[in-house]
Amino acid sequence: MAVRSWWGWGWADQALDAHELEQLADRVRAFLPLDGEITRVPAVPELRAPRLKPPSSVECRADDEARASHSYGKAYRDVIRCLNQDLASPPDLVVYPADADEVQRAMAWAAERGAAVIPYGGGSSVVGGVEYRGADRPVVVLDLSKLDEVLEIDEVSLAVRTQAGIFGPALEHRLRPKGLTLRHFPQSFEFSTVGGWLATRAGGHFATGYTHIDDLVESMSVLTPTGMAHTARVPASGAGPEPNRLWLGSEGALGVITEAWLRVQQRPVHKEGVAIAFETFGQAVTATRLIAQSGLNPANCRLLDPLEAMLGAGALDGGSRLILGFESADHPVSAQLKRAIEICRGQGGVASDAEKWRGTFLRGPYLRDGLARLGVVVETFETACTWSNFESLHTAVLEAVAPGFVTCRFTHVYPDGPAPYFTVYATAPRGGEVAVWDELKAHASQALLANGGTITHHHAVGRDHVPWYHPPGPFTEALRAVKRTLDPQGILNPGVLGLG
Amino acid sequence: MAVRSWWGWGWADQALDAHELEQLADRVRAFLPLDGEITRVPAVPELRAPRLKPPSSVECRADDEARASHSYGKAYRDVIRCLNQDLASPPDLVVYPADADEVQRAMAWAAERGAAVIPYGGGSSVVGGVEYRGADRPVVVLDLSKLDEVLEIDEVSLAVRTQAGIFGPALEHRLRPKGLTLRHFPQSFEFSTVGGWLATRAGGHFATGYTHIDDLVESMSVLTPTGMAHTARVPASGAGPEPNRLWLGSEGALGVITEAWLRVQQRPVHKEGVAIAFETFGQAVTATRLIAQSGLNPANCRLLDPLEAMLGAGALDGGSRLILGFESADHPVSAQLKRAIEICRGQGGVASDAEKWRGTFLRGPYLRDGLARLGVVVETFETACTWSNFESLHTAVLEAVAPGFVTCRFTHVYPDGPAPYFTVYATAPRGGEVAVWDELKAHASQALLANGGTITHHHAVGRDHVPWYHPPGPFTEALRAVKRTLDPQGILNPGVLGLG
Repeated sequence: MAVRSWWGWGWADQALDAHELEQLADRVRAFLPLDGEITRVPAVPELRAPRLKPPSSVECRADDEARASHSYGKAYRDVIRCLNQDLASPPDLVVYPADADEVQRAMAWAAERGAAVIPYGGGSSVVGGVEYRGADRPVVVLDLSKLDEVLEIDEVSLAVRTQAGIFGPALEHRLRPKGLTLRHFPQSFEFSTVGGWLATRAGGHFATGYTHIDDLVESMSVLTPTGMAHTARVPASGAGPEPNRLWLGSEGALGVITEAWLRVQQRPVHKEGVAIAFETFGQAVTATRLIAQSGLNPANCRLLDPLEAMLGAGALDGGSRLILGFESADHPVSAQLKRAIEICRGQGGVASDAEKWRGTFLRGPYLRDGLARLGVVVETFETACTWSNFESLHTAVLEAVAPGFVTCRFTHVYPDGPAPYFTVYATAPRGGEVAVWDELKAHASQALLANGGTITHHHAVGRDHVPWYHPPGPFTEALRAVKRTLDPQGILNPGVLGLG
Repeated sequence: MAVRSWWGWGWADQALDAHELEQLADRVRAFLPLDGEITRVPAVPELRAPRLKPPSSVECRADDEARASHSYGKAYRDVIRCLNQDLASPPDLVVYPADADEVQRAMAWAAERGAAVIPYGGGSSVVGGVEYRGADRPVVVLDLSKLDEVLEIDEVSLAVRTQAGIFGPALEHRLRPKGLTLRHFPQSFEFSTVGGWLATRAGGHFATGYTHIDDLVESMSVLTPTGMAHTARVPASGAGPEPNRLWLGSEGALGVITEAWLRVQQRPVHKEGVAIAFETFGQAVTATRLIAQSGLNPANCRLLDPLEAMLGAGALDGGSRLILGFESADHPVSAQLKRAIEICRGQGGVASDAEKWRGTFLRGPYLRDGLARLGVVVETFETACTWSNFESLHTAVLEAVAPGFVTCRFTHVYPDGPAPYFTVYATAPRGGEVAVWDELKAHASQALLANGGTITHHHAVGRDHVPWYHPPGPFTEALRAVKRTLDPQGILNPGVLGLG
């Protein structure tokens, strides 16, 4: 049975092996100086003794293995800290509730002991979303992976009721026999849960239209410290501020999502795609904008800048690539593809076949971990801005991360702007990687905000993004008031969203 | 210059004249007993003396005409009360701020005097959204119609920055020379404002996809009693609970919307449509569901039940009608229309040409006012539910309003369910119309909620829907906490959304 990595991304046995690491080093040396060392994957270190005695009423683990693997998310800085055996503040206890009742009991138990409670889905946060950073109180991680049942499928209305701890593949596995699919495939798909997607407003499969899980949810059940909240299961409503929207993006700070009705769809049978090559990035951006504004709504519309096209899609001509895909369960999509290609031709685009993108996409995080072991500082960040602001934002980001270098792709596009996704590569002295990255990240974040970008399009705020999250003002005051009202003792995921 | 009706819908000179009323009476007598009387439109009655002395710093009106026409929205019960000269609690003052500064000063001035402040756009609420129902304090209506400037158009990102008091036609007039359009055409389009649309989550032009103004807003400026809130102008974000969603649907209870960036689009050049006739309503519902789930995304997909088809589209065969329309600024839409027709044929649908719908749609509220003068109780209500729930909901509504009768149409449809819109016709003794309607409405609302419907898809909550708005629980507690925090004196539109 496959085992999850305690220190890095995904499955332990999918990490790059010695041979793959050597090959990777050979490829990277052309761009970045390497010191020739390869960090050994350490054993789980001996952790500080737990400050809590496990309750008998709920399944728990207090062993070092469980606590270490629930200490951090899966950001670059998390991987580096694990590789350095830097686990100074592990959680004291990992609790595995089996249902909403047990979630409630575990929360009450923790509250009585003054403990912080960290709701935990797949633990794939790259923004410090599951890591309590105070030292003042014991920490209980609420691992929701036992809430993994699909409860009901409505084949007429195309919706599924599922517990929130289910992982992506298990949910799709239950939908497949009905010919249905959620079609929500974040890069973390294998290692993240429905509840995690909802709590962090995950970005999914579709490059246009309904890009976020926000659009796919009908209703939710959320257990707050002051009681259970259920939103109504309706296709749409105009009754006051949208209740689902209070819980979407609440990142475990207001309640624990236990269940949801999600919109599913028939599995697509018509699929067509192409990669378009552009000589200049500017032409490619214009073509992408025109497609985003055309109403054609491609399922995939992924623009890769020249460096990204080379590293991610094997394009060696120094040009950009636009990867387009259309899909439908109902009707052929070739006319839409044809029209999109026509729009690209108008901007100098040429149909190409460099389509290695998907494999690289899913393998990406393992490569990142390999690079980390080679001593390369490598991480991603993402934003969304208007088309008008993109050029200045892009220039500012390139400057902000120098002398490191950065690649850019668009993961999602809207009629009014793209969601640019950046990957940074830089060097740092061994032992200084986290400090170097934190400084690069601060410069980059400043550049995003100064140029009209959001601090995150789909990675969430967590703790890492708090300094660039919303400024003081009525909305922040409102959010704080909600936090005080629903979680008066401040036990839930303290620190995320800048809350308590 | 056209003058707004003080007692009924829209322009005073568009109300049905004596001849039209006679014709209407002749048509209606086949269905409903009439007493032969036609209510005379009364003059504005003499109102209670204002309890406030107008401030000198902001433009105000305290005359009876202004106060009477700002007393109510435009629901049936509002029209009846005006026709009965029932204006027991008119506002004391109508203030016309010219900019956000003046809004702020007017709010502060009112707060000092313990007055309630009613933000007022076009005043077309049909749910008691602009009518303070307490008697305990003076009332200031904040008429925002002087905030009517279009401030900026971003032709690259396709967005417009506009003040919130602008009416639909004025906004479209400013966009037209650029070849742009907001394409948001609620039935109230002529008589409602951008700020009103945002505050009430208005439903617009598109029957599928981006149906609500919620989807068309990039950012907003909202003046709360504790300060100005600006949301970030980005195409999408995943940073915490969505800030725009706190203000969307806040119905003037949390702040006054002063400005917004809205997404616009190129004017469509490809348009195709058809009306499809179905023998049974059930077949029509199934075909509509399959189209809603097909991904074809028609701009119009309006299903009329047999009675609605007869009254609204002149169909005399006792069948239902599905009115379909596709549009695009980029590409021909005939393939989509053809496929939609094919889906309809699979359910027994036959292409027809009964397309008088749009004229009736826009003329509807004037007809309602005419019927009101003939003594007919006539009003609409609307909801959204899953496809699975529709049949039982529909049956329950028919029973709830008996012996009155009801027509049903779908104004918007989603993959997971329709937004049914009902029109009720009943009789009542003269003078008892409001009581009869209120009872019918209570029964109907109960039927909606008991069968999985929302209390409103796009009419908002106002005061009339409060009894069927969300139940006690964490979301309601959260909303109350936000209200207390942003409006500690409780001056803003007290009563809407059940908030103080």
